[in-house]
Amino acid sequence: MSISTEGDSVAVIDSNHSGGTTEALLERGRALSLPLLRAAVDRLAPPMDTVAAYHFGWIDALGNPADGDGGKAVRPALALISAEAAGAPPEAGVPGAVAVELVHNFSLLHDDLMDGDEQRRHRDTVWKVHGPAQAILVGDALFALANEVLLELGTAEAGRATRRLTTATRKLIDGQAQDISFEGRERVTVRECLEMEGNKTGALLACACSIGAVLGGADDATADALETYGYHLGLAFQAVDDLLGIWGEPAVTGKQTWSDLRQRKKSLPVCAALAAGGPASDRLAEVLAADAKATGTENPEADDAFSEEEFATRAALIEESGGREWTTQEARRQHATALAALTGVAMPQAVRNQLTELADFVVVRRR
Amino acid sequence: MSISTEGDSVAVIDSNHSGGTTEALLERGRALSLPLLRAAVDRLAPPMDTVAAYHFGWIDALGNPADGDGGKAVRPALALISAEAAGAPPEAGVPGAVAVELVHNFSLLHDDLMDGDEQRRHRDTVWKVHGPAQAILVGDALFALANEVLLELGTAEAGRATRRLTTATRKLIDGQAQDISFEGRERVTVRECLEMEGNKTGALLACACSIGAVLGGADDATADALETYGYHLGLAFQAVDDLLGIWGEPAVTGKQTWSDLRQRKKSLPVCAALAAGGPASDRLAEVLAADAKATGTENPEADDAFSEEEFATRAALIEESGGREWTTQEARRQHATALAALTGVAMPQAVRNQLTELADFVVVRRR
Repeated sequence: MSISTEGDSVAVIDSNHSGGTTEALLERGRALSLPLLRAAVDRLAPPMDTVAAYHFGWIDALGNPADGDGGKAVRPALALISAEAAGAPPEAGVPGAVAVELVHNFSLLHDDLMDGDEQRRHRDTVWKVHGPAQAILVGDALFALANEVLLELGTAEAGRATRRLTTATRKLIDGQAQDISFEGRERVTVRECLEMEGNKTGALLACACSIGAVLGGADDATADALETYGYHLGLAFQAVDDLLGIWGEPAVTGKQTWSDLRQRKKSLPVCAALAAGGPASDRLAEVLAADAKATGTENPEADDAFSEEEFATRAALIEESGGREWTTQEARRQHATALAALTGVAMPQAVRNQLTELADFVVVRRR
Repeated sequence: MSISTEGDSVAVIDSNHSGGTTEALLERGRALSLPLLRAAVDRLAPPMDTVAAYHFGWIDALGNPADGDGGKAVRPALALISAEAAGAPPEAGVPGAVAVELVHNFSLLHDDLMDGDEQRRHRDTVWKVHGPAQAILVGDALFALANEVLLELGTAEAGRATRRLTTATRKLIDGQAQDISFEGRERVTVRECLEMEGNKTGALLACACSIGAVLGGADDATADALETYGYHLGLAFQAVDDLLGIWGEPAVTGKQTWSDLRQRKKSLPVCAALAAGGPASDRLAEVLAADAKATGTENPEADDAFSEEEFATRAALIEESGGREWTTQEARRQHATALAALTGVAMPQAVRNQLTELADFVVVRRR
């Protein structure tokens, strides 16, 4: 395994696997979970059904059918493989895949509104198109639907799965609270940042990796090991996201340029750069401190007033301080820890290969 | 039972019971559920724990301990009686009482933001004090906590209770969606309004009345009958709320004068007045139609531009059309239907008396 971080690439490892297999796993996750996901969304009272359909990319802002980008769907793919890890057919994981995807999208709807993000998946965000009230309401509805989809199974396994999902959702919300509070601070330690990202991204990805197994009848020890895999995979995923949030190509990511810098996100590259010390790190600290004083903590949108060059300078300071390189290495470390968590878990070799495929995908993606 | 609607009173029946007993039931509900409620809220990551404590009236806006109005706490009281209806001790209903109260307060946090309401329980609302992001986030957290409090019991009964709570929460959200959509319409039928109120208020009150019984081991038939009682009690409750939303005393209700008219709520008195026909009804329709044209549907806050006299005129037109009287009668009808639902249900006479007490309280309250 070798590190490749040349140019604007965020690839962290050279995967031994073909992208084609990963694409097939993601496509299977989407295809198997879509009917139940659409049926769940169709239960929503108007106009929430329409707003949700827009969010998922099934219709455009005018209500016409669309084939929009519904996201990478890493979580549904993992939920189905998780069922197979417990020796169950992938279909056993479908309600878990749908529930996790519903919670993920609930958080996107609310986070985009809280963060003032105007673009997601190459389209205007829901609050921008349908207004803040619909973003709040449809988010709430997706959260409730997630529990409904699981609990209507009426089994003891569904109860255990819902409990794990609830724990993950609470952490997700804790993580968003930490993320917001970090924006108003001058300094955030790398440890605090990792804790926040573990809550915000790790917990739900961990749940995606265990929920299928729980529904498939796995014991708690197996489910816990799969959660550990998913948690570290989530941290690797987020480290790559943080790299993309600064150095990603807007045309590929579907977000604004310098997205995370505009939001004053204290993401991993920023925290690592500030912790590194040295001239570039000190200069970055000065810039961010002046910034916080000038605009206050109450109005992050004021960042939009900065020029593109200002953001480019900040990105360069982060890179010069070693924040980009450290984050790339961290993604690699988390990737390795994730795979190590599977060592003691009995599962078919084909399933283990799939979990390795997806772990590799998470750290070599460009969006 | 006689109707008394003189002056500005919204009393719908003359109760045979003393208010003292009701106060004792409400106080018991508050006292028994508060430790678990506070413990649940204490689990939230900062600053969400502080924001939630402010919302519940435990601290003031500066963070100092307070003894604020935490609401009437009708739902916790009902959840404990519900456990007793199943022959269990009231304590068996406590996790249900807390879960329902958490969902209720999740909806208040989000609804106040969506509706732009600045006052609740004689204090500024959370979004007004702590900002929209915290109102969204803490609402989400309370919703997740509600499921957590039930599911961590780890019993089959807890799974059934969570399923009922999830169904009720989905209806609650449907009801808020309908409520918002009605504000932008010129006309809403009485039937549509009752359906909306059944979702928004009836469903969760129904759940409060069954959740304790489910946790106490009741069968589905008993739980369903208690839900029917609670559903109609909720509709009676909401009819009285609609009367208070127009004719309530701000000093008593803790809301603005003409609160519902400011929000353009198509509440029961308005829908009934519009459906009644006659000169006052026609005049009201004209006023509301002109109103909708003048301000557009996108900016309900523009209503604040109207004078107190304008709202007084509207209230008078609603009353002259018979909207106030019809709503008073409707509260009485729903109250009777609620009590009738208990007829076939076996329960101790003392418990039956308590359910009657609380039903009476709901329709004679002034806040």
